[in-house]
Amino acid sequence: MSKVTPRTPSGFNEYLPAEQIEFNRLLDIIRSTYEKYGFSPIDTPDVELSEVLLAKAGGETEQQVYRFERGKNDLSLRFDLTVPLARYAAEHEGELVFPFRRYHIGKVHRGERAQAGRFREFYQCDIDVIGSESPLTDAEFPAIINEVFTQFAFGEFTIRVNNRKVLNGFFEAIGLAAQAADVLRVIDKMEKISRDDAAHELHDLGVSEEQAEHIFNFVNIGGSNDEILQALRELPARSALFDEGVQQLTALVDALRILQVPEQRFRVDLKIARGLDYYTGTVYETVLNDYPELGSVCSGGRYDDLASHYTNTQLPGVGISIGLTRLFYKLREIGVIKPVRQTPANVVVMPLDAAQIPAALETAANLRVASIATLLYTEPNGLKQKLRYADRMGFTYVVLIGEKEAAAGTVSLKNMATGDSTEVPAGELAHYVVQ
Amino acid sequence: MSKVTPRTPSGFNEYLPAEQIEFNRLLDIIRSTYEKYGFSPIDTPDVELSEVLLAKAGGETEQQVYRFERGKNDLSLRFDLTVPLARYAAEHEGELVFPFRRYHIGKVHRGERAQAGRFREFYQCDIDVIGSESPLTDAEFPAIINEVFTQFAFGEFTIRVNNRKVLNGFFEAIGLAAQAADVLRVIDKMEKISRDDAAHELHDLGVSEEQAEHIFNFVNIGGSNDEILQALRELPARSALFDEGVQQLTALVDALRILQVPEQRFRVDLKIARGLDYYTGTVYETVLNDYPELGSVCSGGRYDDLASHYTNTQLPGVGISIGLTRLFYKLREIGVIKPVRQTPANVVVMPLDAAQIPAALETAANLRVASIATLLYTEPNGLKQKLRYADRMGFTYVVLIGEKEAAAGTVSLKNMATGDSTEVPAGELAHYVVQ
Repeated sequence: MSKVTPRTPSGFNEYLPAEQIEFNRLLDIIRSTYEKYGFSPIDTPDVELSEVLLAKAGGETEQQVYRFERGKNDLSLRFDLTVPLARYAAEHEGELVFPFRRYHIGKVHRGERAQAGRFREFYQCDIDVIGSESPLTDAEFPAIINEVFTQFAFGEFTIRVNNRKVLNGFFEAIGLAAQAADVLRVIDKMEKISRDDAAHELHDLGVSEEQAEHIFNFVNIGGSNDEILQALRELPARSALFDEGVQQLTALVDALRILQVPEQRFRVDLKIARGLDYYTGTVYETVLNDYPELGSVCSGGRYDDLASHYTNTQLPGVGISIGLTRLFYKLREIGVIKPVRQTPANVVVMPLDAAQIPAALETAANLRVASIATLLYTEPNGLKQKLRYADRMGFTYVVLIGEKEAAAGTVSLKNMATGDSTEVPAGELAHYVVQ
Repeated sequence: MSKVTPRTPSGFNEYLPAEQIEFNRLLDIIRSTYEKYGFSPIDTPDVELSEVLLAKAGGETEQQVYRFERGKNDLSLRFDLTVPLARYAAEHEGELVFPFRRYHIGKVHRGERAQAGRFREFYQCDIDVIGSESPLTDAEFPAIINEVFTQFAFGEFTIRVNNRKVLNGFFEAIGLAAQAADVLRVIDKMEKISRDDAAHELHDLGVSEEQAEHIFNFVNIGGSNDEILQALRELPARSALFDEGVQQLTALVDALRILQVPEQRFRVDLKIARGLDYYTGTVYETVLNDYPELGSVCSGGRYDDLASHYTNTQLPGVGISIGLTRLFYKLREIGVIKPVRQTPANVVVMPLDAAQIPAALETAANLRVASIATLLYTEPNGLKQKLRYADRMGFTYVVLIGEKEAAAGTVSLKNMATGDSTEVPAGELAHYVVQ
């Protein structure tokens, strides 16, 4: 029979088991932390009606969508988890309890141009609180980011926070309210371009030299978090919106301290704007200090109106997202993530011969009763092959049962890290293994 | 602005948070049990190249596939997890350690005719061992089913086991080897149709009355597992294949006893054939004793050649699948599954007034440090609304902090089940909550 070459489409990713175990360990950290902060899970269909999914979309997003006809239905694969959240919150408005805190971990699809580190299918790990205007709600997100990335252990990291009201209020004050969105886009990339280039771009937007000077002074406000907040309070250019933003940013910083987020982990950074138009309050970005080239690895912010395309109810919210697939790829590429084992089991039980199979079955069953993940290996091959298997799989312990052990009611317990073997009473094995 | 009605496509399912929490609890039982038996996770793309995915498919399956063009690619959504496993095992043959034990929990898509309880997107939860011919491997699956369904607690259940070699060997012995597949299809539905109808169908297949008599005697062999095996050993009609099957079935039953699967939970049932052509050895079905109308809720078996469309390497395997979406739907419909809470957090912390917000933040942070899932509720509304929220969400504990408590360094801990309130030192709260 002629064979079809087994392969996945370009840009679609899958892992070998050792990588998958590591990827899942990170997913579990995210999930358990989201739950620890009281976020409830939701899981929406991968497939949505195009009319619904693309109610708001346009331009680049719409071009990237996987869209297809099926019978009378015009369907699309979801391209993020925010639009499905808006649809879900609007559709189930009467059944949900607000504020509605949900987490959603799932795959999304975008037909991007294929290139290294760009995936057409990737996981997003989102949390949002919908229907809360309390600024204290905003303070929980950096606390969550802090817990997640501390457990990730990819080295130190910095959560940059800002407030769009500070930015927009400042623009009001210097007479640039109308151009705010465009100016924000320039500010958003000021870290990557020279001052001259930034000045040039501002000039092209109709910003006067005096206004530009205000902008540069503003985004260059530095120092500690308290010094930055103090400088903002003392700024000559003011507006009501600006004052509200500074107040919220101050409240955020105060709350983060009470929530035990270490001071060096969060930083007021007035350059953070998050290009997206819908952020209206607090905004977040997260940078790995040792790998700044990755850019922000966890971002988000507060928005005024989540689901305006689906409902007249105004649903303000705040949320963040971790794009784990890309983060994993990048950190695996530079060797920060190193998968070590191919199996979730700590222990493998191996009868040396067919005669010891009953003893091996019993031993495996007893370990599992003691909640010890155990693989039973009953392939009829030699000891050398058995140990080679155990070594390749990365087990912590190998339990061998030969004729002698079976007769004596014992097992031979080999610690793969130290190479030591001990003869242990079969009934006491669980005790030795959990040590 | 005109609104788009928020809705999902017909046949695409999503849950409200309380249902999702319950669904995820069941998924976690499956996953943790699969891992306890040493199965490694994999996660393949939702989207495959049609040429690869449909290398084997045809007929009904192919018609149900969601297939679409994208640029030069002819793509399809996966319709099960078995074909992706075959593709994965063949593609990564040189990188995997065999026997390859993998679990895969994921969504699949089938464009079935929409009707109640039929979903176009649903979860499958599969485990397979690829590259093991050891009959002991087959014995682990009923042990796993036993553990999973014991934890599910949907009442008693029966795992029916059989061996296709027993069936095929028997057909050989009575001269029906050529018609075996057709006869199996009749046997597969003998529970649902009358003896006369079955006899009629057999007659139409060219089965003689004497052969039909053999078949009815065979499938009606009853009694305990040991009695059935004894009856098989004493059957006059024999063949080498039949003897091998009986031997394997006997070894399976022996192993299940050593693996501590309770005797009443598994049952040799000679009628179980599993219509699919590719099963060649042990086959499994699982029935909930109290809900037999659901049919088999977990099925599978042994096959000789998983990936013949992709590789010349013969990859024998054995596996089972749980279709959780349908099972959940059915048991929810008849009230066996009853979601109770909308949040994974046990505790909600509520300041009575803005002045107690710092105390509330600190209390929530301390509970989370103690690994207690905690929701912080800082909405500026009255006590009645606060308690109504706590009640609707289903928290176990409500922690209220008023002026008096904040001053005294205490909190008011309300147990929502008993209605009791206690004043507790803030620093000792974790101790009271975990009780």
